[in-house]
Amino acid sequence: MASFIFRRQLTIEWGQCDPAGIVFNPRFFEFFDTSSWLLFEQALGVKAQKLAAAYGIVGIALVDARANFLKPAKFGDTIEIASRVSEFRRSSFDVEHKLTIGGELAVDGAETRVWATRDKNDPDKIAAVAIPGDVIAKFAVG
Amino acid sequence: MASFIFRRQLTIEWGQCDPAGIVFNPRFFEFFDTSSWLLFEQALGVKAQKLAAAYGIVGIALVDARANFLKPAKFGDTIEIASRVSEFRRSSFDVEHKLTIGGELAVDGAETRVWATRDKNDPDKIAAVAIPGDVIAKFAVG
Amino acid sequence: MASFIFRRQLTIEWGQCDPAGIVFNPRFFEFFDTSSWLLFEQALGVKAQKLAAAYGIVGIALVDARANFLKPAKFGDTIEIASRVSEFRRSSFDVEHKLTIGGELAVDGAETRVWATRDKNDPDKIAAVAIPGDVIAKFAVG
Amino acid sequence: MASFIFRRQLTIEWGQCDPAGIVFNPRFFEFFDTSSWLLFEQALGVKAQKLAAAYGIVGIALVDARANFLKPAKFGDTIEIASRVSEFRRSSFDVEHKLTIGGELAVDGAETRVWATRDKNDPDKIAAVAIPGDVIAKFAVG
Repeated sequence: MASFIFRRQLTIEWGQCDPAGIVFNPRFFEFFDTSSWLLFEQALGVKAQKLAAAYGIVGIALVDARANFLKPAKFGDTIEIASRVSEFRRSSFDVEHKLTIGGELAVDGAETRVWATRDKNDPDKIAAVAIPGDVIAKFAVG
Repeated sequence: MASFIFRRQLTIEWGQCDPAGIVFNPRFFEFFDTSSWLLFEQALGVKAQKLAAAYGIVGIALVDARANFLKPAKFGDTIEIASRVSEFRRSSFDVEHKLTIGGELAVDGAETRVWATRDKNDPDKIAAVAIPGDVIAKFAVG
Repeated sequence: MASFIFRRQLTIEWGQCDPAGIVFNPRFFEFFDTSSWLLFEQALGVKAQKLAAAYGIVGIALVDARANFLKPAKFGDTIEIASRVSEFRRSSFDVEHKLTIGGELAVDGAETRVWATRDKNDPDKIAAVAIPGDVIAKFAVG
Repeated sequence: MASFIFRRQLTIEWGQCDPAGIVFNPRFFEFFDTSSWLLFEQALGVKAQKLAAAYGIVGIALVDARANFLKPAKFGDTIEIASRVSEFRRSSFDVEHKLTIGGELAVDGAETRVWATRDKNDPDKIAAVAIPGDVIAKFAVG
């Protein structure tokens, strides 16, 4: 069974590029973070800013991020980011972000996130809890 | 005679907001910088990344930026930015950026920029030169 | 009577520069925001992250920011920012940020901020309240 | 034989934090990028902005970045980043970034970079070339 894919297109801005004229790497992690929010918004049908309240969580907390930079993206380039949950586990899941330029893979990104609530014993900490089955079900397509 | 207005809509992202839950002010200057590039792209019909080469300049260099923050923008808010050149002078011009949320003015921004070439005597410096009449003409509407 | 001046030095980083090899303008507003926090930390003797709680406010909310860009700052440049409150009014005040490179003024920045509490009638809004006299007194030197 | 370690301390700024009050993840990749530049500046004794010219390269291009987020960093936290080259290969190398707060590991970061020149056949591309032996030698300590 396939997993729902969220796609969006962006045009690279002047201020997102460094003196080499290419996107400064932290910007890709910004793109991926926003794509993860939008992926959940689209799959669950709940506005990103209302997700936490709707599910009684503090958020989908990031525990790991990684990216492989294959081709540079330059000012004015149109990029497409295709994002999907590649695996759901009990309380954590992986998001895959494929960033392409003209159909060619330019950045291969991935995140690991947890379904997070506030820790009952220490409100300053978060605790990973089981992802509801109906959340996972909404990502299944086909 | 009115000046061409470029409008775009954005949805505020999680990472653009600070611990108060509102957009961190430097982000607005990013929005305005990009809107200025797009305003010129649309008015002149030349891709932003090709503007400098098309007109033999190094760019539309920023010499002054200012913003008045009237209402905060929050995660998930849809904002609209309406940008136009409010005045062309010999070699400099003013860009006005009206950022609204639900029709209400939230940030009132403005920039002063110069039509800039490389200084003939010192290639590390820029020099402001006269803005071509046909550039100015393309911003006139109505 | 003079006003307390907070000075700090920074070295410009690769990722703070744009394809022209100079600092992308929104970064200066980041520098100024942080300098304002540190100016208050130093003048009041309270850690920035404890200021709000110490004075029963939500913060020193920005209502206006402006900068005049006189000389570019490049990757590796050592800059100095000298910040001071140029005027205290009843509930608002102006902060002046002079950014110099090698002793020459490169960016002339200014902010207007308010001493802000949560609005009693609408907790989503902030309200400007009178700045305590002992806060203002701590900025007086000489 | 141990590898040279570059350490620096930073205090987390307001604008580096998100609505959850913790550092927004792309900021860590900014910290790591700058630490890599400074690690090379210190080990080689050449200012970061002069490294490329001094060695006839275009830079130390990033091909992979990853981070494991163990503990959040908050506004006002003092963090320390200890960076070192964990492995030199023919034309690529790994940089390890250990970000600690109060001695505890908070973010475990790593980058893979290449010693990059301009491609002879296509000046728009970069090519990885062998890292000079004297560069590698300067990172050896003890």
